[in-house]
Amino acid sequence: MTVSPARARLRATLVDARVLVPTDAPGVYGRSAGFESVVEGLEGLVLRAGADRPVESVRFPPVLPRTVFEASGYLESFPDLIGSVHTFAGDEASHAALLAAVESGESWTDGLVPADVMLCPAVCHPLYPTCAGTLPAGGRRVEVSGWCFRHEPSEDPFRMQAFRQHDYVALDGPDEARRHRDDWIQRGASLLGRLGLEVEAVAANDPFFGRAGRLLAASQRTQELKLELVARIDDDDPPVALCSANSHLDHFALTFGIATADGEVAHTSCFGFGLDRITLALLARHGPDPDRWPAAVRSALWP
Amino acid sequence: MTVSPARARLRATLVDARVLVPTDAPGVYGRSAGFESVVEGLEGLVLRAGADRPVESVRFPPVLPRTVFEASGYLESFPDLIGSVHTFAGDEASHAALLAAVESGESWTDGLVPADVMLCPAVCHPLYPTCAGTLPAGGRRVEVSGWCFRHEPSEDPFRMQAFRQHDYVALDGPDEARRHRDDWIQRGASLLGRLGLEVEAVAANDPFFGRAGRLLAASQRTQELKLELVARIDDDDPPVALCSANSHLDHFALTFGIATADGEVAHTSCFGFGLDRITLALLARHGPDPDRWPAAVRSALWP
Repeated sequence: MTVSPARARLRATLVDARVLVPTDAPGVYGRSAGFESVVEGLEGLVLRAGADRPVESVRFPPVLPRTVFEASGYLESFPDLIGSVHTFAGDEASHAALLAAVESGESWTDGLVPADVMLCPAVCHPLYPTCAGTLPAGGRRVEVSGWCFRHEPSEDPFRMQAFRQHDYVALDGPDEARRHRDDWIQRGASLLGRLGLEVEAVAANDPFFGRAGRLLAASQRTQELKLELVARIDDDDPPVALCSANSHLDHFALTFGIATADGEVAHTSCFGFGLDRITLALLARHGPDPDRWPAAVRSALWP
Repeated sequence: MTVSPARARLRATLVDARVLVPTDAPGVYGRSAGFESVVEGLEGLVLRAGADRPVESVRFPPVLPRTVFEASGYLESFPDLIGSVHTFAGDEASHAALLAAVESGESWTDGLVPADVMLCPAVCHPLYPTCAGTLPAGGRRVEVSGWCFRHEPSEDPFRMQAFRQHDYVALDGPDEARRHRDDWIQRGASLLGRLGLEVEAVAANDPFFGRAGRLLAASQRTQELKLELVARIDDDDPPVALCSANSHLDHFALTFGIATADGEVAHTSCFGFGLDRITLALLARHGPDPDRWPAAVRSALWP
């Protein structure tokens, strides 16, 4: 994937400053202690932004059950982004054959078998099956945070293969789920503004696969099911999405059997902070050394 | 994999208390806010335990480059534990065929292709290739922390498929690398002791695959290349390794081209804290509610 001169410069600056440690795989980086302290600061800020209302917390690992992935519909819409986990279940003879293939530089993965897990494509996906059944009156609000994977190798530092999301999720009636999402758009924009990031809320669509995908994308935009908070990073590139607000309507509730206290099919929505992307936007805006960022930004992150 | 009555009881207690949220995949759990606050407390304690000496920090994501994995030798020794990441690179026709396979409950993964990443098997592995070249005089000390994956589905809560490790790594001459490891065994045992966990340092071996693996395991024990800090959790089961101390000799340095300032092939060693395992040991020892743990343990974790 080609990358603009501005993004190539940003990447070079962050690599030279040892903020990002490049690896053989595009979009897979080590992060410096400074980078991580920004992510930690953001995590705290995001939690404080939601602390005025009761919310449950749960953390899932970077892999989720294959059964949950298969049911989620992700494979229909984004097959090219998936990470399917495969392992070896053979005997010593097939192990020897596998090593011989590695040795001669051939493909060695043909004999692997799918494991019972997939890489997690979105941090809220593992949550829904654990909420199966009838919701309490007033629904549920849950915050989740963790690693996501999307297979899109790129030299653009904003397009990482492995990245972290922090989501506020609502499981409730249709109006309440929509209101949750729209309320968080305001909160998210205000939070990013405190960090010196000017953002705009825009209707958006996911990168659905293929021709049928173009229809889905158009429909998602028409119904305003997805909004993003985007920031302009440089003049070469389109604005970058730092937060994403999604109405799933009854998709996950139908799939995993989640009902409101009234016995209706629930709706779900989520608002996600892209932790690595916001950190990169801050590094691009305020420079590669967080110790030298404006005092107001520092005190918001590390009160 | 069978699990002892004691481990089944511990799992049931933690699930009932909603400390662990089970999923369809054995060994893949959601973690409660309480569980995570223990992990965060441990991270701080582990960092303070090493704060008297200069150390570099870097954090890698849960996936590492396939090239690094292939070079590491992991596939020779632990093929059954690997997580190879595969994705879809076909056209719309093959996508339709893939979805038809999912729909009819058949295997749908045959047409996937290996991605350029693998799940990270040990938190220090991504580090070594980034240290290629000549070390400064005095070597390097680096602490790393992150998610690891091992494909060993089990109902034993101590055997998770996805778990976190925090490692202190030395890259230096042979004596210094060995001393680093042995020094950390003392520090690790003392740290765990402060948390009310009685541990013993024992010679150990990795679960090498197959018949040839038995020889490697025996040799690893004879040379005392691996030591573990183990704790007895219950009377049904053998003690559990909470920390692992490893001498790699020149294995990673030869593989990735790391030399000492004197121009010799370097040695590497690491000492790893099993963050999820230590948290589980604390929950088993002090009960499922960290708010009610002994004051000394709480003040060590959350000073």
